[in-house]
Amino acid sequence: MTKIVVVGGGAAGTGAATIAIQHDRSLSVTLLTEFEDIAYSPCGIPYVFGREIEKFDGLFMQTPDFYKEMGLDVRPCTVVTRIDMGERVVYAGEEKFPFDKLIIATGWEYDPPDVPGTDLGGVEYIKNIRRAMELDKQLDQVKRAVVYKAKPLGLELISALPHRGIETHLVDEAPWLLSDFADPDMMKPVQDSLEEMGVKLHLGTKLLGFKGQNSRLSAVETSDGEIPAEMAFVATTMKPATALAQSIGCKIGSTGAIVVDDHMRTSVPDVYAAGACVEVMHGLLKIPIQLLPGSYAYPMGKIAGYNAAGGDRPFQEVFVPWGIIGGKVQVGGALISETIAKAMGMPYMVGRATGITAARYYPTHEKMHVKLLADPKTHRVLGAQFAGGDGVKERADFMAFAIRKESTLEELATMENVYSPPIGALNEPIALAAQAALRDAAAKK
Amino acid sequence: MTKIVVVGGGAAGTGAATIAIQHDRSLSVTLLTEFEDIAYSPCGIPYVFGREIEKFDGLFMQTPDFYKEMGLDVRPCTVVTRIDMGERVVYAGEEKFPFDKLIIATGWEYDPPDVPGTDLGGVEYIKNIRRAMELDKQLDQVKRAVVYKAKPLGLELISALPHRGIETHLVDEAPWLLSDFADPDMMKPVQDSLEEMGVKLHLGTKLLGFKGQNSRLSAVETSDGEIPAEMAFVATTMKPATALAQSIGCKIGSTGAIVVDDHMRTSVPDVYAAGACVEVMHGLLKIPIQLLPGSYAYPMGKIAGYNAAGGDRPFQEVFVPWGIIGGKVQVGGALISETIAKAMGMPYMVGRATGITAARYYPTHEKMHVKLLADPKTHRVLGAQFAGGDGVKERADFMAFAIRKESTLEELATMENVYSPPIGALNEPIALAAQAALRDAAAKK
Repeated sequence: MTKIVVVGGGAAGTGAATIAIQHDRSLSVTLLTEFEDIAYSPCGIPYVFGREIEKFDGLFMQTPDFYKEMGLDVRPCTVVTRIDMGERVVYAGEEKFPFDKLIIATGWEYDPPDVPGTDLGGVEYIKNIRRAMELDKQLDQVKRAVVYKAKPLGLELISALPHRGIETHLVDEAPWLLSDFADPDMMKPVQDSLEEMGVKLHLGTKLLGFKGQNSRLSAVETSDGEIPAEMAFVATTMKPATALAQSIGCKIGSTGAIVVDDHMRTSVPDVYAAGACVEVMHGLLKIPIQLLPGSYAYPMGKIAGYNAAGGDRPFQEVFVPWGIIGGKVQVGGALISETIAKAMGMPYMVGRATGITAARYYPTHEKMHVKLLADPKTHRVLGAQFAGGDGVKERADFMAFAIRKESTLEELATMENVYSPPIGALNEPIALAAQAALRDAAAKK
Repeated sequence: MTKIVVVGGGAAGTGAATIAIQHDRSLSVTLLTEFEDIAYSPCGIPYVFGREIEKFDGLFMQTPDFYKEMGLDVRPCTVVTRIDMGERVVYAGEEKFPFDKLIIATGWEYDPPDVPGTDLGGVEYIKNIRRAMELDKQLDQVKRAVVYKAKPLGLELISALPHRGIETHLVDEAPWLLSDFADPDMMKPVQDSLEEMGVKLHLGTKLLGFKGQNSRLSAVETSDGEIPAEMAFVATTMKPATALAQSIGCKIGSTGAIVVDDHMRTSVPDVYAAGACVEVMHGLLKIPIQLLPGSYAYPMGKIAGYNAAGGDRPFQEVFVPWGIIGGKVQVGGALISETIAKAMGMPYMVGRATGITAARYYPTHEKMHVKLLADPKTHRVLGAQFAGGDGVKERADFMAFAIRKESTLEELATMENVYSPPIGALNEPIALAAQAALRDAAAKK
């Protein structure tokens, strides 16, 4: 009987194990996780904090028993201590898990800031759901909170905490929100919305340390002064968790993550990897990128599990649609942004427009700001960003697909669109932005 | 000075005249309309009836003066009586409007049902906005209303009237809603929603006539019995208004509408046409279709105006995204539907899935039913239909574009998507439907 062992019980690991046993019921599939639970949605945590989701219950999708009934051997609270590739055995202390194929889905870990006071009570990281449940209770006593870094999780947290009546501060050395990939002009409406909600944005501000009293946080020290707070969320850089993979000689790439081919195979025979611990190829940049949004962990895991179980299915290059609500504004897009194009030294042209999400005369219509990036020679679209009302997620998905299909500004400028007063305006904002880009280009000639 | 005369003040005519003068300020551009107003949105009328839009004011986009200031010679209440192609003059009674280029944008007219009683007071057609404003006042006195035919306007009306406390009946000989192009399975959620709102759906029911007392409607006679009502909306077939075009010899096509080339030129030199009076080529069917949704009138008009003014811009073949709210359910898609594929004898395969519009644990998530049609050999996507919560319009636009780009089920099955709890689920419903289609196809082999 062929034995598959999966290390990691997040979306990638669960996806891999599930698809493997579904593909071939005769396999022995074991899923090891250091945590008590598998298959929960950590992405929901900020929304419970903000009480948009009432309780944590819904975030647990399935119990370990559900997977056991499916035929998986699920081992919670199992910390892998070493892997012996000669014996083909995964060790968790004394316990031995022999394998023919191994799938590494060890995910990511925080890279804590190198400042004093990170060990104080009240200096918190969001990852494990049980810890988050304890924090949720503590939040009732919190009057002031600081969130460090406006990456997606940080942005979700500062959008959520004001709903609990908590004075919320953001500290980030970067000059704008989501500065790793989004553009400052497109994040401006989000910034305005957060400030309207009362969030204090300390941008361009360095974190200097955490100050405490009786081992509990009392204030956060920054280049902008001291911010008194009872809780601080360190929503800092996540790095791929590659220690196990490195211990058995898996090749690590330029991003610091595990190198896999399009079948999710590592450089070590019979060892697959998936999720936040691997790097994948960007379809336009043609360079590996890493720590993709959580949406990739599950499909990536399924590819790894399917192939480990004897299947043959490739993972596509990625164009990375993204979307989030910051404050009360939806923002999103599909890479590449102007920020990334500049950093990469790529030539680009820009098209901008502000459309609306329903008929001008329909009362619920909202603005939809659009920014398109295209190649100045071929007019091939390179990226899109949106900020405004409803429909950002669907437009981001659309644009990621359009970029993959090598679409041009001319094609987007003449796209057809639904016009129905409550759900769609006469002019689709994406088409308006493409038309604007072409008009500007014609005027320059 | 080159003279352009535009006949018709709807979206196509207004778009044509506006773009012509903007393209070349030295032109003389005259816009003739039989109505008092130009540039209003008749599409908003049902929503004012239902009080989702408070008043009619917002539906008037611009006054005739606005266009006069732009340099257009706008002539409201001007009924064209004949066109002399020898003299190159449009006549409105005694008035003469000489032209070098003529643009016909005469739109559509109702094809009234051949039953007794259509001349009774209370038997109404929705077209002119001033008439609609009078009807809106009368609706306060209406207790029971009948809508004849569940085409898009009829569907909007039966969704709106219950909000006014009116007992609302639909009569249609077809067995399902939007039967011309939508599929019965996809219209089922709409039907359920309307019935929940109290709308009485008399489907598969023939209209026999209108019965009156003192020249006012008292009941609608149907094959299903008599329905007492104070008002009946005849939302019946619209036909292209082609009398003027025919009088000067413009070629009429198989659909009964004016034939134009991709530059909106009719068969008569220097005569262009645009809007609901023309037929255009469907990108997949490769046959002309007609009476497209209102969203096409404006862009079509702009192409006609631009080319008449000396420009050179083609109109694309169409793939027709559509969307509407029926009851409380959003429905839409991009042609071709199963209904049309069957009627045309086209081979097809189907993929179905029901996804959700936000994370499963996020309280506002709603169902999203998806049905995809594809070519069984090439897997090229032929059409899509959606029914459910938010995001139908954006998905319909996406699918029309994807069909134009000759996308396959394989490409949609591996599309990337945003996952963000309040705005997007882990799995995009479109991808789920494509995956289902491929799974079914593999199982049959």
